[in-house]
Amino acid sequence: MNIGSGVVKAQEGTKKQGKDDRLVEIYRGAAAIIHHKGYDATSLQDIAEAVGLTKAGLYHYIQSKEQLLYEIMNYGMDRVETVVITPARGVADPAQRMRTLTSNYASLIIENGQPITIILSESTGLTAAHLRKVIRRRRAFYEFVRDTIQQLKDAGNVEGLDVSVTSLSVFGVMMWLAHWYQHEGRLTREEVVDQITELTVVRMLGLPKA
Amino acid sequence: MNIGSGVVKAQEGTKKQGKDDRLVEIYRGAAAIIHHKGYDATSLQDIAEAVGLTKAGLYHYIQSKEQLLYEIMNYGMDRVETVVITPARGVADPAQRMRTLTSNYASLIIENGQPITIILSESTGLTAAHLRKVIRRRRAFYEFVRDTIQQLKDAGNVEGLDVSVTSLSVFGVMMWLAHWYQHEGRLTREEVVDQITELTVVRMLGLPKA
Repeated sequence: MNIGSGVVKAQEGTKKQGKDDRLVEIYRGAAAIIHHKGYDATSLQDIAEAVGLTKAGLYHYIQSKEQLLYEIMNYGMDRVETVVITPARGVADPAQRMRTLTSNYASLIIENGQPITIILSESTGLTAAHLRKVIRRRRAFYEFVRDTIQQLKDAGNVEGLDVSVTSLSVFGVMMWLAHWYQHEGRLTREEVVDQITELTVVRMLGLPKA
Repeated sequence: MNIGSGVVKAQEGTKKQGKDDRLVEIYRGAAAIIHHKGYDATSLQDIAEAVGLTKAGLYHYIQSKEQLLYEIMNYGMDRVETVVITPARGVADPAQRMRTLTSNYASLIIENGQPITIILSESTGLTAAHLRKVIRRRRAFYEFVRDTIQQLKDAGNVEGLDVSVTSLSVFGVMMWLAHWYQHEGRLTREEVVDQITELTVVRMLGLPKA
């Protein structure tokens, strides 16, 4: 693990893509502790220890605990945008778009760190202004999924289902995946993503697998 | 709202059924604040205010914040046992048992207070000994659902699905319901329970509706 020491330089223009690796490590380590102990019970000292820095060293990377939480959430939503939303936007067919959404999101949750996904669904700790911005991004993602399921319904699928309850239930399967998935578990990552796709796309939405 | 004033007497033997109404009000009020602010950021003063008591008055009902959290969780699990597990245990046919489990659990989540359901899925705040006991009760519920889905699989249903991933995904739909359900929303409670049953029992598990 490369500890590094320099001050993180502002990377204008490439901020979304080029997040410093060390910063991402800090986000992941901090998310794990915040999820485990709760935001208020977590000190910057706890976070520093978990990521192998002194508290002074941690201050090279972050301004405050609240700012760190907000950055973790933005990092999480940036990843959702890059890995899930943007590729899915390029898919015209709503059934295929739904497959892309589901398998990319399930993969991201497993890969990107489950604590980040869990923290992203919570609202504790942020200032009101930051919370509003996070909620706006979460809602945009939800509405993108909901619009896709609405298009499927308009095309004669998901008969008898309420589009909102269906969308929220697909999210439920995903959010819970973040709670229960175990690396080194009985199933491979690919098998889990395949099962999640089967349960949501094929069974809940009644679409062909591919 | 009846504020009451007496010390709650130990009700040996009827503890599970006969929880004092005022105590249940305190559990619900406390769960709502703990969910909103986080366990550590919530003071007993906050809880007392929310349920219309002085802090001294609150101490007639509870011993400490940790003990209160533990009691909320036990109350939540008692309700699951009474409303969901016990009625389902009486149903021999696994398909019908699954329908009972799903609709009773969805109804309970909506009725019993969503914050209690959410807090029940978390692990922050409890002592290690209390957490072990809560985890044991949560696990027993999960295994009851899992065993039912295993029986369905043994009888030739849920083809191609992993029993554990399927069980956890049914829980995901339920847990998320606790997050999104709005009283006075567009759909009635019955319509929501019906949609949840359709999505899980009928679609995920491929069983007839009734």
